[in-house]
Parts: sequence; structure tokens; C-alpha cells
Amino acid sequence: MDAISRLLKPRSVAVIGASGDPAKTAGRPVSYLVKHSFSGEIYPVNPKIDRIGDLRCYPDLASLPAVPDVGIVLLGAERAHLAVRDLASRGAAAAIVLASGYAETGEEGARRQKQLLEAAGSMRILGPNTIGLVNLTDSIVLSATGALEMDHFPVGSIGVVSQSGGILGSLLSRAAARGIGLSKLVSTSNEADLELADFIAALADDEATRVIALYVETVRHPGKFRAAALKAARAGKPIVAFKIGRSEAGAQAAVSHTGALAGADRMYDALFRQCGVIRAQTFGDLLDIPAALATGRQLRGNRVAILTSTGGAGTLVSDSLGVSGFDTPAPDARTAAALRALQTGDHAALDRNPIDVTLAGLQPDLLRGAIQALLASPSYDALTVIAGSSSLAMPELMAGAIRDCLPLSDKPVVAYVSPHAPEAAALLTQCGVPAFAAPESCTAALRGLLHAGQWRAPVEEGVGEGSVVVDDLPAGPLDEAQAKQLFARFGVPCAREVVVETPGQAERAARELGGRVVLKILAGEITHKSDVGGVAVDLTPEQVDARVSAMAEEVERKARVRPRRFLVQELVAGGTELILGMHCDPLGTAILLGMGGVTAELFKDTTLRLLPARGGLSREEALSMARELRTWPLLDGFRGRPKADVEALVTAIVAFSRMAAQLGERLVEAEINPLFVLPQGQGVRAADGVAVLAR
Amino acid sequence: MDAISRLLKPRSVAVIGASGDPAKTAGRPVSYLVKHSFSGEIYPVNPKIDRIGDLRCYPDLASLPAVPDVGIVLLGAERAHLAVRDLASRGAAAAIVLASGYAETGEEGARRQKQLLEAAGSMRILGPNTIGLVNLTDSIVLSATGALEMDHFPVGSIGVVSQSGGILGSLLSRAAARGIGLSKLVSTSNEADLELADFIAALADDEATRVIALYVETVRHPGKFRAAALKAARAGKPIVAFKIGRSEAGAQAAVSHTGALAGADRMYDALFRQCGVIRAQTFGDLLDIPAALATGRQLRGNRVAILTSTGGAGTLVSDSLGVSGFDTPAPDARTAAALRALQTGDHAALDRNPIDVTLAGLQPDLLRGAIQALLASPSYDALTVIAGSSSLAMPELMAGAIRDCLPLSDKPVVAYVSPHAPEAAALLTQCGVPAFAAPESCTAALRGLLHAGQWRAPVEEGVGEGSVVVDDLPAGPLDEAQAKQLFARFGVPCAREVVVETPGQAERAARELGGRVVLKILAGEITHKSDVGGVAVDLTPEQVDARVSAMAEEVERKARVRPRRFLVQELVAGGTELILGMHCDPLGTAILLGMGGVTAELFKDTTLRLLPARGGLSREEALSMARELRTWPLLDGFRGRPKADVEALVTAIVAFSRMAAQLGERLVEAEINPLFVLPQGQGVRAADGVAVLAR
Repeated sequence: MDAISRLLKPRSVAVIGASGDPAKTAGRPVSYLVKHSFSGEIYPVNPKIDRIGDLRCYPDLASLPAVPDVGIVLLGAERAHLAVRDLASRGAAAAIVLASGYAETGEEGARRQKQLLEAAGSMRILGPNTIGLVNLTDSIVLSATGALEMDHFPVGSIGVVSQSGGILGSLLSRAAARGIGLSKLVSTSNEADLELADFIAALADDEATRVIALYVETVRHPGKFRAAALKAARAGKPIVAFKIGRSEAGAQAAVSHTGALAGADRMYDALFRQCGVIRAQTFGDLLDIPAALATGRQLRGNRVAILTSTGGAGTLVSDSLGVSGFDTPAPDARTAAALRALQTGDHAALDRNPIDVTLAGLQPDLLRGAIQALLASPSYDALTVIAGSSSLAMPELMAGAIRDCLPLSDKPVVAYVSPHAPEAAALLTQCGVPAFAAPESCTAALRGLLHAGQWRAPVEEGVGEGSVVVDDLPAGPLDEAQAKQLFARFGVPCAREVVVETPGQAERAARELGGRVVLKILAGEITHKSDVGGVAVDLTPEQVDARVSAMAEEVERKARVRPRRFLVQELVAGGTELILGMHCDPLGTAILLGMGGVTAELFKDTTLRLLPARGGLSREEALSMARELRTWPLLDGFRGRPKADVEALVTAIVAFSRMAAQLGERLVEAEINPLFVLPQGQGVRAADGVAVLAR
Repeated sequence: MDAISRLLKPRSVAVIGASGDPAKTAGRPVSYLVKHSFSGEIYPVNPKIDRIGDLRCYPDLASLPAVPDVGIVLLGAERAHLAVRDLASRGAAAAIVLASGYAETGEEGARRQKQLLEAAGSMRILGPNTIGLVNLTDSIVLSATGALEMDHFPVGSIGVVSQSGGILGSLLSRAAARGIGLSKLVSTSNEADLELADFIAALADDEATRVIALYVETVRHPGKFRAAALKAARAGKPIVAFKIGRSEAGAQAAVSHTGALAGADRMYDALFRQCGVIRAQTFGDLLDIPAALATGRQLRGNRVAILTSTGGAGTLVSDSLGVSGFDTPAPDARTAAALRALQTGDHAALDRNPIDVTLAGLQPDLLRGAIQALLASPSYDALTVIAGSSSLAMPELMAGAIRDCLPLSDKPVVAYVSPHAPEAAALLTQCGVPAFAAPESCTAALRGLLHAGQWRAPVEEGVGEGSVVVDDLPAGPLDEAQAKQLFARFGVPCAREVVVETPGQAERAARELGGRVVLKILAGEITHKSDVGGVAVDLTPEQVDARVSAMAEEVERKARVRPRRFLVQELVAGGTELILGMHCDPLGTAILLGMGGVTAELFKDTTLRLLPARGGLSREEALSMARELRTWPLLDGFRGRPKADVEALVTAIVAFSRMAAQLGERLVEAEINPLFVLPQGQGVRAADGVAVLAR
């Protein structure tokens, strides 16, 4: 068994600094281990007392009769490292350090955290500043969370990893109240050693775990996270993550909480998307979506039947589903006939959806018949049943009917509980029908199922490891001509252009380029050329001649630099302007595609992809970026416009991404703006760009 | 007392068709009246039985010893109208008709509903297809909802009106479980007679009601709704509405449920916005926001302090607030000093926000001190307290501390309860601190408070009742020149133009217009002029001459109509293109303003306002429309563009709205597209437009 397996399922646990008073935090771990019937050895360690309940208490780690698999360290930050050193020297697999006062508090704390890590040597550390972990599968509680006061917790197949200890307790108590079964709960908190990715990988191997839920403040090692997430995906275990730090305020709070540095939120969207992690949009979704995924049922399409006995709640669910793009079609003729044959009440609505059996239809046989007919119907991919006020009086009614019918189909079934009826909801959830108190939660759960069913892990994780020679390019900021040379070498088509120094050269260049041209100054030190009069568009060769000197004078007057060199560039017209750039972030290097032009800029119509571990983006990924733009129709023949050369655009994105991949840290910045996408068959042209190479 | 007051607070109630079996729906109303201690007279009517419990049962309405204020009619749709007729003839104020099988079921049902209304004469009807109403203030239950099985319901100041009966029961049971107090609950359902607006107006007068919550499927009489909503606003009673029918599927379900025809969702946004109704975004918000408003506390700004003992939950709340635009600044120096003086735990974080007292800080005195300091701080407009896992064991701890401090300040205080702890949450709510189980609910509640605090009912409800003469304009579709004449008469500046028939006239017109012009065909029967070659832009007078014949030929070839007349129009350049139109809808006539151009069209960047009861939009309202556009920066000097003539734009919007107001139903359609907004001081120009006058 490796160290993490021993940590998750220890045969023996030492509790260093255990108190005999179960009301104190330091008294809880031993008390909970006993309360929840740990079957292995418990070694309380405290030199001041002899016994805790029926257990012998040891004065120090040296006195233990055997090597513990895990040590729970309850000492303060000043002394915890001493216990960690002793545990490591005795050969324990891991220490769980609860004390706060480490990296989350500042420099002094960060120093203590380093000391802790050194004391551990090759032994693993969970924490510090953690509330510990709970292995519900094997009823092993290595935690001080007050949520463990409960007598029973619901065992199931959702593994939870949280970077916050308080949230772990919150999820445990909420899951228990709702009948949602968990397998493992781990709070990683400061992540001095063991982190999110370690437990994702462990849960991917854990037989009892079917779904993984994450509460994320920051991802410390994106590569490791990605590898672990893809491992889980290959094991068929979907991951749902709630990530805080979406707002600046939230990000600050995260820093103060676990010493984490949260990256920009959109980068997390890209990271999660690219490794199939379903992002929970609300905190509630973090239990709701896993509850639906834990049933193991797959949603194969977006058509949902709604079975109700109360019109209003049916409308509510139908409306919420509709807003999220689900379809709620009326029953097909055969299904409607099967429903009518059930002889429900006078005013039952059986030929539309929601299918309303009315109060009169609340009879076990009738409900069974209706559920069977809807599950068997080829018109539906899923069923939502609604428990109305009757559930208050008869909680077994709907649950019983569903329980009988569930084995007949593998379609997902979820429930919306209209009145306040937590017991009825928990009963349904335990029967395999996740029940929700909000219509929006039903919808989120079904969306999660749809997403999990549609996502496929990428076959090739990055393409084309290049070996383009760029050694001749200077370090530091390149001028516009050099930047485009760089892009061109990797295969991005650029507008034709000539570098000139005199009016005569400029005129000749314009003639060679065959007509109307753009004239620009070429001066690396001036970033915003047009602001200082350094750009002139749509000139004839004759006009260029005259313009060179005039431009030089205007720029000198405005920018106090006399430009010596100019760029004469073919005029590109008739295309759609895009921006193609790269962005270096703690989460990795991202490729950004955006629509150009001032209006699109206001709408921030951009999309991001992180580069894979090796190589550039695939054509498929590049195409998906373009299609994700809200202004994609502009490239796709909107309102009679010519279709754009999307093939060429995809090629350019892939080429640009390979450049970023090959150059790695050598490429500090790169952006093509604008990239003109011409009509089909005419390709793309980079018309301007910047690049900065590392010195 | 008027009829609605007698309905809401009857002294005597007849229950027609009462059953002696309280388990049956027909047995519930009498059983609930007794259970919840109705102090007036109860007259069960049923010829088949003599007594129901201790009550005498009457064979028919004629036998009653007195005229009942209200009759609850439990008969089926075939016979209900007979009871209604009898009640009306005896002088009852209102009948509550529970039967279904009316307009919600189709034509035959609609006929029965009409019959019911005729039978009622001047007596008022609630329903049919209603679950009735509950007056919690006076403990009078006139309803069959199963939710009334509960022994006690929380009395408070939120009045609820629902167009669905099932939802009424759902809200009642949820409110009760959460300690949220209600005043009145009414289910209007089919609204054969009494409707939403009637009860909004009644609740505006009801002393026990402070906040009004609406579950809306459709607004049948927008004018009445608006008047009632403004009445409530003037009485200082905010309204929160959840409206279904946001998706097409939801709208269909609404039709089948109450026979309602739901209007387009964005029109409801405009309606609600213009009468200060806060729109609940989720079903949960429909209780959450009123719960916060019911405290009567006002939120005067967007700065929120978060007091927590558990870091993770604090981060969660801070993140959610941040996403919604709230500010969570660190404590000012004086507040931080006051907090430090409380001597909280070692690792307490008192100089940042969330203010984390840690577990060690969970002591009554310390909490009281911290709450006092934060409520007194000039840095905060509101306080969110977080109840952590400790609330499971000590529900009184936080509630007690808050209860002591609340009277010291009038700032809003809300709570987020991190673990599953419904009792602790209900306790807090009952203490005047609405408690929520989702961070997003805290945020929604605070947003509702902010909205209610900022909204002011319009002083003048529409301006400028015009008397522009338009009798000379033909009925039916106007041609472009006529349409612009119409707009110009009401004060919208139009591009200068001349109608011509020959090339020579065209050339002369172009010279008169002073330079480059646009040439267009003038033919009412061709809608898309440019598709058939009927538009040429940027022509010199010489070019115009030649182009007239060429255009006539091309149009004839493509559209099979030879244009006889042309429009020569000055070329308008250098402005921003907008669309200004009107839209007739069941909710009223709306003025639409949108950004023009293909990109903005993709983003559907438009905004709507309904015309007031009389006159056009105010300048303030017109300006708010422009500022609401996401592309507003394009008018406001974005990226060094010249600022647009917003004054002139506002004048044009007001003028256009007055035209729509004066013409009323005579104006079937009107749209200016594009409306060029030129740089400051240069005005606006309508460059093209359509208008259709009623025949």
C-alpha cells in the first residue's frame, strides 16, 4: 500500500496531543474514532494523562507498541513539527496537522510551514490548518469537524476534496440531511505537501468512489491537476468543482484563508473545460450535480418528461429546464395512449408535458404505470417527478412507485420536492432518485449529467512538437516586421510588406505590392503607432512617396522620436478582424482568440485554451474556439455575408499555438491584432502584431 | 368594508359541498377553519349530512341563519355556478371556487367560466381552480391546501399572491419551516374575476403587510397591475415577483395551467422595472428577498462586512457578493482597533474582511462586541454574519448576540448558515436576521434591499400629450419619405432628402443637398431595398444622374417591379448607428432602443420601456435607456472616439415615444433604422425608417 492509501485507510492511528475532554477540539478525534467504531488501533498520546475512556494514553510516540499508519497532530504550530519529526522517524505513512498559524498568516507562518515539511522528510503531510479527513466507506474518521457529532452518516459513492476545512463540515452535514451518500472527505487546506491532485488520483483508483466533488480555492500545480483529472476521466469518474475567487474580493479572501494565490477566473474555466471538470455554478450545485452523477445513469439527450400532480410546480420545473436549453416535448401518441389507459382523474393533462395526473392520480398503481410509460417512451431521455404537498402526508407514495420502476430503465430520474419536505426528499435520494428543493437544482443536475455524458477525454494531448529555427531573432521586444517574421516561420500567413527608409524606396515597394498600401512607422519603442500619426491607410504609390516625410515629422513632433524606418504593407480588405494572442498565467500558457473591432471589444468576445502538456492545440480544439465566439456567425455567413476561410483560421491558430509551445518560456508575449480572415479560399493575413522574446 | 376586505377577513363563511371526512379535499376547509380557530361563524352546506364535528350542517344556502361574507364552493365545475348564483342572490361578498375544469382546459371550460361569472353578478369571485386564501394575520384559513395540516404558521408581514395554488402551499410550508412570517396568502389561479392587481391594491392598504411577494404566470391587465404596483410603492411596500414563462416551454405550461397567455419575457422585465417590482431570479428568491425586506431595514450602499468563525464560509459569501458587485472592504483603522480590543484568538483575522474571530472567538461577549463594532463602523452599510458548524451545538449563541445588538443600528443584518442547521436558521430569522442556506441567497437578499432602497416611483407618469396633425398621411404602410415626414413632425430630425422621378431631378437634388448623396428607390411594396439593388451610397451629383436608370433596371430585373420614384438623401457620416422602434404587445406599447450594426445585432443589445398610461417617456427615462445599452461607451467617448450628441438622442427618443403615445392604436408599426447619432452638438439624423398606420 502506498502512503496515501495508508492515510485514507489506516490500521492504526496515533493522536498526538489528544485531550480527554471530548468537548474540546483536541478531544474530538479520539472521541469520534471511538464513536464511529474504528476497527484498528487508536493510540492517544499525551504525557499528562493515562487514559482516555477505555483507551490507554501514551506519554510519547517512542512508547507506542507499534508504528502507527497515521498520526493526527493536535499540537500548536510551535510544537507540531516535533511530533511530525518523531512520526517520520518511526515510519508512519502520514501526519495530519490541524494547527493553524502557517503560510495562511504571513511570512513567519510560511517559515514554520517549511520547517514542518523538512521535519516530515519522506513522510506525507495532510495540512497544516486542515480539519482532517473522513473515510465513510470504512467508517474511519480522522477529523475534528463538529459535523461528526452526528450518529450516522450516509455512505455512498461521492468522494469530496476541499481546500477549506469548514466547507468540508458543511458538505458533510448537508449531505447527511439530504440522504446523499459520500465515500471519502478530505480537507487539504494549506497543502504543504498533499494537494487536490493527489486525492483526485487516489479517488480515481478508489473502488467505492464513482464521482469526485472539489471545493477549490486555487490549483497549485496545474500539470499535476490535469493529469489527475484525466486519470479520473479515463476511469469513468466525473469531477464536479466549485471554484471560489470569481470576484476580486473572493480572491483576496482566498489568499487570506489558505495562503493560496488564485489565478484569473477565466483561466480556471479553460482548465476545467479542457480536462472535463464540470464547474458548479453555485455552492449548492457542488452536492446537487454529484448526487445525480452518483446514480451512474447516463443522460443521452435533452428531452425531459415532467410527471406532476400539481400544475404550478410542473410549470416551474418546465420553465427552469427551458431556460437552460432542455426540451420538454408532449408525449408521443403511443405514450399518451398508455397514459390515458391508466384512467386518471377528470382533468388530468396526459397529452402535454408536464404530464399532470392531478391529485386524483396520486395512487400507487397509477403512478407506477405513468412512470413506466414515460421511462419506456422513445420521446424522453430523462424523467423529472414532482412531489407535491401530498408528500408531506405520504412520503412513501412517490418513493415507492419510483423504486419499483427504476430497474426497468437506465434513464436518469430526478425529483423536485415542492413543499418543505426534507424527509420525503431524503427518502427519494436514497432510493436512487436525487431530490431537490429548487427547480434550478433539478436543471443543474440534469445539465451536469448531460455534460458528463458528452465529454470525451482528448485522444491526443497536443500536437506538433516543432523545431522551427528562431535563433537569429533578437531578445526583447521585436519590431512589427520581426514579430510577423516570427509568426510566418511557424506558418501564420502575414500581409506582404517591405521595410523601407526613404520615400523613394517606399514608392517602389508600393508598386511592387501592386496598388493601394498601408504605411506605418517601424519603431519598437512606440507602442501605439496610430496615436502619434504613425499609420496611414489606403495610399497609392504616389501618395506614399509624399507621406513618408510628413509622417516622420508628425511622429517626431508628437513622440519626440524621429522614425528612421517604415513598413509598406499591402492593404488587406474584405475580411473579418480577429485577435489571436497568448497569455502566460500561473495555470499555464493560454491561447486567446477574440473578435476584433470596437463593438466586439465592449462585449469581451474572447475565448481561451490552455496549451496541453506538450505541443500545440489540435485543429478540433482550434475550431471549437472559433465556434465558441458569440460573433461566430460573422465568420459563418451571417446575413448574406460571404463565409470566411475558417480552415485557414484554424491552421493559423494551430500554428500560433505551436509557436507558443515550442518557444515555451522564451516567448514572453505574442499577439496578432488584427488577424484578417478573408472569404473562403482566400486565407488569413496577420496585419499587425507584437512579440517579446525573453532576454 | 368593501368586498375584497370582507373576502380577506370574513365574519362568516359558508362551505358549500363540505364533506365530513377531513382526509378528503372537500373535508379540509371546514376542518382547517376549526383547527386554526376561526372566530366567526362557519356554515357547512351539504344536504346529505346533519353535522360536521360540532358544527350544524345546512341542506342549502337558503337555510342559513345569516348571510355569509364568503362562500367556499367545493362543488364540481358542472354545479359550482348554481351555488355561486345562490350566494350572490343572498348578498355574499365573494365566492371562492375550487373546482377545476374551466378556462384552463379549453373551449368548453371557458364557456363554463363565463357562465360562472354571469352567475356571480356583482359578487366577486376568487378562482375558479384556486386553492383559496389564508389570512395569517387573523388566523382565517379559507383554503384546501394540504400545507395547512401544520399546527402553527409563522405570522408576519409578507403578503403573497400566487397565480398557482400548488405554489401557494409550497411557499406556506417553506416559510413556516424557515421562520419567515406571512400576513396573507392568496391564490388567484384562473382569475375569472379577482386578479393579481386587486390583491396588490388590497395589500397596499393592509396594515399587517409590509412586503408583497408575487408568483406570476401572466399579467392580464397591465394598466391595472401598474396602478396597483405604484400604489404599493407609494405606501412604501416593495414588491418582489417571480415570473415563469421565461422559456418557450415554460410559457406553454403556463397556458395549460391557468389558461393564461404569457407575454414575451423581456416585456415583463420592462413592466416590472418601470413600476419598481423586484424580479426574483430564482424561485428561492421569492421568499429570500421578501424575508430581508420584511425587516424594514434599508441598505444605503454596497459595502458589506462579513463576520465569521470559519474561513471557508466567509470566503464563499465574500465571493458571491463580489460577483454581484458588492464591496467587502477591510475594516477602517478605528473599527479594526475596536475589534482587536476584544482579545480574540491567536490567529483571528480582524484587519481584513471577512472578519474571522476563529473558533476561539465564539463567546457571547466577544460576538456582541464584534457585531457592535461592525454595525457602528462608517465603512459598512450592512453586516452578514456566518453561523458555522458550532450552530449545530449552540444555536442560541449567534442568535443571542445579534438579538442584543440589532436595536443599536438600522443597518440590515443577514446570516449565512454553513452547515445543515434549519432550527438555528429559523431562530435567526425570527430574531430579525433573515438566515439563508446558500451564499447566493444572501447576495440576492442584499441586492433586493439595495434595489428597494434606490428605486423611486416616477414623479410624472408620462410627459407631453401631443396634438400633432397627421390626418393627411395615408392609412397602411407609409413609404420611406412619408415615414420620415411622420417622425419629423413629432420632432425627430431626419436626413435631408428630395423625392425625384428623373435622372435630371436626381442630379439637381444632389447639388442642392451639397455634395455626396445616397440614392434609394421609393417603393412601399419592396421591403428590403438593398437586396434588389435599390440602394447606392456615396454618389456625386454626376454619378447620381447615370445611376437612376441603372438602378431602375436592376430593381426591375430582380424584383419584377419598375421603380418610378427615387429618394436622394444627404450622406450622413461619422455617427453611431442606432435602432429606435416601437413594439405592440399584450403588456402595452414599448419603445425599443438598440445599437445598430451587425456585431451589436448578434449581441441583441437592445433595451425596452413601456409607454406610461398617458404621454411619452420622460427625458430621464430616455437617457436611462441609452445608458443601459452595453455599447453605451460607444456614445460616451470610448477609446478616444468623439462623444456623441446624447442630448439630441434623448430628444429624439422622447419625440418618438410621444408619437407612439399620441397615435395609440393608429400606429401599428414604426422603426427608425438607422438613427445616426453624430458627435456632440451635431444632433441625430433618421436615415431610414418604416411606419404603418391603421386602416
